[in-house]
Amino acid sequence: MSDAKLTDVLSPLLEATGGLDAAPSSVSGAKHRSIKLDTNENPFPLPLPVMQSAIAALKHHHLYPEDDNVGLREAAANAYGFDQDQVIAGNGSSELLSVIYKAFLAPGDSVAMLSPGFSFNRKLAKLQGARFIEVEWGESYTLPMKQLLSGPAQDAKFIVLSNPNNPSGTFVPVADVDSLAAQSNRLIVLDEAYVDFAPDDALRLVNRHPNLLVLRTFSKSYSAAGLRIGFGFGHPDLIGRLRNIQNLFNMNVIAHAVGISILSNRRAYSNNHKHIKEERERVTTALSDLGFSVIPSHANFLLARVPPGRNGTWLQTSLRAENIFVAAFPEDGLEDYIRVSIGKKDEMDAFISAAGRILKQLVPHETSVTSQ
Amino acid sequence: MSDAKLTDVLSPLLEATGGLDAAPSSVSGAKHRSIKLDTNENPFPLPLPVMQSAIAALKHHHLYPEDDNVGLREAAANAYGFDQDQVIAGNGSSELLSVIYKAFLAPGDSVAMLSPGFSFNRKLAKLQGARFIEVEWGESYTLPMKQLLSGPAQDAKFIVLSNPNNPSGTFVPVADVDSLAAQSNRLIVLDEAYVDFAPDDALRLVNRHPNLLVLRTFSKSYSAAGLRIGFGFGHPDLIGRLRNIQNLFNMNVIAHAVGISILSNRRAYSNNHKHIKEERERVTTALSDLGFSVIPSHANFLLARVPPGRNGTWLQTSLRAENIFVAAFPEDGLEDYIRVSIGKKDEMDAFISAAGRILKQLVPHETSVTSQ
Repeated sequence: MSDAKLTDVLSPLLEATGGLDAAPSSVSGAKHRSIKLDTNENPFPLPLPVMQSAIAALKHHHLYPEDDNVGLREAAANAYGFDQDQVIAGNGSSELLSVIYKAFLAPGDSVAMLSPGFSFNRKLAKLQGARFIEVEWGESYTLPMKQLLSGPAQDAKFIVLSNPNNPSGTFVPVADVDSLAAQSNRLIVLDEAYVDFAPDDALRLVNRHPNLLVLRTFSKSYSAAGLRIGFGFGHPDLIGRLRNIQNLFNMNVIAHAVGISILSNRRAYSNNHKHIKEERERVTTALSDLGFSVIPSHANFLLARVPPGRNGTWLQTSLRAENIFVAAFPEDGLEDYIRVSIGKKDEMDAFISAAGRILKQLVPHETSVTSQ
Repeated sequence: MSDAKLTDVLSPLLEATGGLDAAPSSVSGAKHRSIKLDTNENPFPLPLPVMQSAIAALKHHHLYPEDDNVGLREAAANAYGFDQDQVIAGNGSSELLSVIYKAFLAPGDSVAMLSPGFSFNRKLAKLQGARFIEVEWGESYTLPMKQLLSGPAQDAKFIVLSNPNNPSGTFVPVADVDSLAAQSNRLIVLDEAYVDFAPDDALRLVNRHPNLLVLRTFSKSYSAAGLRIGFGFGHPDLIGRLRNIQNLFNMNVIAHAVGISILSNRRAYSNNHKHIKEERERVTTALSDLGFSVIPSHANFLLARVPPGRNGTWLQTSLRAENIFVAAFPEDGLEDYIRVSIGKKDEMDAFISAAGRILKQLVPHETSVTSQ
């Protein structure tokens, strides 16, 4: 095929997605024998009966998964006190976010997110050709009610709010979410990915507000990031629409079985969650002792401002040289911060000790730079 | 919230998807202790080393799957002789079809499919607000080259062609696909879901035609329908665009491990495929003896015209009463046909014997109807 024909064939095809570039050639995903504190996974194993359910489900490998995730949705409805038609199950809550954007946004529409927030939302809006409105959090990460009820967010098709918020780890009272949903005539997409590490949750509001859609995931608090299990809870009209456009057989038989088993073994996670909350407080103190300014967190991670003189990307890079991975957000107005997930005690010890070592080297290094 | 506010909130949200209804309340997916010959699954177990790889992968349950499916794409590239950037991996080829529609169709665009074909394509077009053009197969399911190169298909953004075709089971020579891709300036999406049961395949054409995108799945020939593993092979520009809009973490760690393991254990399936092809011939003969007119198949299913007097839906319903599930396509101009998957020998024996019994009852039943 000539180059001219290649252009002829490809150019009309590449119009539709609005000028997004192709994904770069593959990045290396493997981080072997490293301390991975950059994506907020839960480091503890699945409870034994959950693991057994996964192995048992493997014998169904040759059959298509249950249509429309019926059994899993039924189990989630029972566990959380909903009807089945108020529940959608997803290949992680990331799939559900993606389906929400696809279902409710046409090109030219707008969507609002509390900012800084989960930057994946920015990409989803771009893929729909929608305008992405970032509404800044109020003082100390409170809900900026006025900005959400009037101003640019008023025209948004929906508002994305994460509680606890990522990457700040902050938590707004459920009463404030209640008040927002009551006063707003927009859909509120409430991402509760980290809510099991927080003091309260908003599921009870779903029956009160048809404009509230709550997302949950088993990736953070239930140690199942690798298996892709998420849920959405909301008004049957919204949920039905999302189910209708969702990919056929979006979850596999292992995700179905593990999801159902986690739902009936939630109590087995109490030590897991207790450890993470205690460790979170210990690491907060240790980082403060090192000169970090740590935002009090209700999630399984900490957003910490690096001591003056260096920024988040610098510390991220320095830690990576010691095989410790943390997150930085230079594009989200958080240049001075790192986000560190709460892992096992020995991982956190290694992180604190490396951070201390790196920062100690900072002073002579700075001096030597100055003396040049 | 008042009914007025409910309408106020929901109606603008429900505009975007173009009047599609919500999914119906859940259907029952369980078909316990039945003979399931309606969705073309492979009845045989995974080879032992593949099963072992699945169990080993379970220990990674708590970590996010590898980004962009790098390891699996690399394994597929090596197995089939491509570069990694010519390969996309999907949560089944159904996800890949969905991504293709999303990537390349804007509302008002059109897409063409050889008809009768895989009806899921019709739904995908509707979700994009695109026009769905059905181009009838030529005599004896040959490629209607003229209709594909001119006529309405000429304006389609892409043409979907399944080879072997579903639901007919027919196969067009790879030379004809070659010729179509060479002469057409449209993208050809070639779905080779059933190609391991056919005499040839078109992967070798991918490097020749940048307008050819080949889809594969491990759901049919590799006994992994429940785990959701599919691939697309094509020009890096097309593949890159699809990868870019694909959902984050679209496959789980079990699907990754099993996919990689199947790729290096493909020889272990030779008896599996041999059985299915032999059984296909045996059932073709048996159904012909019962008065069916069977289309010669190159897939793991048969499309068979029911003997005169009754239609496909009637036979499907009659078989279901005996707990045997087959497919019927009353909406695809195939009212007189059933499609039956090739399963294990005892399953096919049960099917043949039930079909024979049901058709035998037909004559006295017809008589009694006439005598009323």
